[in-house]
Amino acid sequence: MNKVILLNKRPVGKPTADDFKFIEEETPVTQEGQVLLKTLYVSVDPYLRGRMSSAKSYTPPFELNKPIQSGIIAEVIESKNPNFKVGDFVSAIMGWKELQVSDGKNLLRVDGSAAPLSVYLGILGMTGLTAYLGLTEIGKPKAGETLVVSGAAGAVGSVVGQIGKILGCRVIGLAGSDEKTTMLTSKFGYDAAINYKTTTDVQAAIANAAPNGVDIYFDNVGGSISDAVLANVNQLARVPVCGAISVYNETEVPMGPRIQTTLVKNSILMQGFVVSNYVAKFPEAIKQLTSWLQEGKLTYTETIVNGFDHIPQAFLDLFEGKNEGKMIVKI
Amino acid sequence: MNKVILLNKRPVGKPTADDFKFIEEETPVTQEGQVLLKTLYVSVDPYLRGRMSSAKSYTPPFELNKPIQSGIIAEVIESKNPNFKVGDFVSAIMGWKELQVSDGKNLLRVDGSAAPLSVYLGILGMTGLTAYLGLTEIGKPKAGETLVVSGAAGAVGSVVGQIGKILGCRVIGLAGSDEKTTMLTSKFGYDAAINYKTTTDVQAAIANAAPNGVDIYFDNVGGSISDAVLANVNQLARVPVCGAISVYNETEVPMGPRIQTTLVKNSILMQGFVVSNYVAKFPEAIKQLTSWLQEGKLTYTETIVNGFDHIPQAFLDLFEGKNEGKMIVKI
Repeated sequence: MNKVILLNKRPVGKPTADDFKFIEEETPVTQEGQVLLKTLYVSVDPYLRGRMSSAKSYTPPFELNKPIQSGIIAEVIESKNPNFKVGDFVSAIMGWKELQVSDGKNLLRVDGSAAPLSVYLGILGMTGLTAYLGLTEIGKPKAGETLVVSGAAGAVGSVVGQIGKILGCRVIGLAGSDEKTTMLTSKFGYDAAINYKTTTDVQAAIANAAPNGVDIYFDNVGGSISDAVLANVNQLARVPVCGAISVYNETEVPMGPRIQTTLVKNSILMQGFVVSNYVAKFPEAIKQLTSWLQEGKLTYTETIVNGFDHIPQAFLDLFEGKNEGKMIVKI
Repeated sequence: MNKVILLNKRPVGKPTADDFKFIEEETPVTQEGQVLLKTLYVSVDPYLRGRMSSAKSYTPPFELNKPIQSGIIAEVIESKNPNFKVGDFVSAIMGWKELQVSDGKNLLRVDGSAAPLSVYLGILGMTGLTAYLGLTEIGKPKAGETLVVSGAAGAVGSVVGQIGKILGCRVIGLAGSDEKTTMLTSKFGYDAAINYKTTTDVQAAIANAAPNGVDIYFDNVGGSISDAVLANVNQLARVPVCGAISVYNETEVPMGPRIQTTLVKNSILMQGFVVSNYVAKFPEAIKQLTSWLQEGKLTYTETIVNGFDHIPQAFLDLFEGKNEGKMIVKI
């Protein structure tokens, strides 16, 4: 029998274990042209919260009583498709299942000898691409500029800061614990880090850490942290809006200061994005990231949780900030 | 004696007549290299509200007890500068004075025979440039897309809509009276117009007028009108943020729904701008606007108020929506 995790109900506010349902189904049978895949690593990501709701978005909502999907690294354990052989490792957005079949169309082959497999869900996967393309395509950093990153110790944020440093920026990170802020400066090369939970006046702390003002704000969190950063932006600042984890679980539309006046006064560009907007740039970006990784210019942190049964809890823990860097479940 | 209008005090909330002070000074004497200018037309614009405050912005605040400045068309009535002769017409950002001297450096010569002089404060001046460059550089309209314009009957808005039509868009305007909405469809070629003051559910009205969703939202007003438009945007929509007249007079920071989630879900680009960001594109833009004007593809409305003493009241009337199109004071 094959374990599968379904969307049981759409969360109201913060997701809970009840929103997920475990079932067992017959082990799938491989048809001609298909491969049978064994799940090795599952990526859990804040953006999945959006797909659990019924609101229209850039990807369709998950269907009730159907498997949740996310980034997965799997091994080919049976192949009736000439493009794949048993023992190949592949990456794709797939269902939360121990085993599943695929026609191979959306599978990306990954090289387990070039880097640890889990890295293809992180710094050499969607996480790294999101950081690199959001920062370079929207943030357009120039050497000497000041970059502020919120959710800086998260999977994307920790990569954004390192790339900002490689490109010559002064980089300031916002995170929610002293452990995280210490890691930002000691491990990821941030010039300064602010614990927004223990700092009374975050706006003043940013002003202090960014004496020349903020040229780029890579926003992973939204909410009042972003208000504090936007109060410090320079003329012609750029704001890649990657996520808004601080408000994903709100049941009322979250209210905050209107930002149009700030945008006009400072000629600010603010752009929401998902990495799939930049598919054409993936090969070039992966090449650059791989090269930096091999040169030792990029490092990463993973929080690895073990066991298929723990996938939902690993996802829920994201909203408690329990991860450092990329949160991955190893099966 | 020469009449001058000074900033008397910084407005709190909505500006009032008390914020301005009339004085008389000696008629200025022209030095070598200078010209003496007689003010003919004065532009009053919502953005001046920002310069009356002390907050830092893209242009420095007006100083207390110094002349207010705005776009002015003047005639050279005395010249000790070889580049200008008596009878020349010029345009510049200058003080609210009946007469003033200039060294000629920032004066742009305008041709009174090619178009009525007031037009160089409007459709062939900052207003037209703001509409054209904001729409084309940020909005990037493609034929077949849907464009929504707020403040659509205003100076900039009425031009934006017409350019949108020329470029093949479906164009929907938001304005605050039936007189204005009628003008939008009958005079400026808008496909649909919504009176936001008498429409109970503006969001639904926009959805109805934009069955394919909104691809570009040219925002002149901010506030709850913008909330209603943003609820209808398509994936990859562009939002040039030109102004926020609805909140310029608020004394508290205006609150509203946070928009980061909307930006991320729909990969929206939102960009505040001032026309001076695009100085390099002015010549090309003026050429295009002049050509459309001469071909009869563009029309415009002016509200002309007569008399130097009425400049402050004309400015105050902008916030009551008393203007149709460009508000100009003729001296």
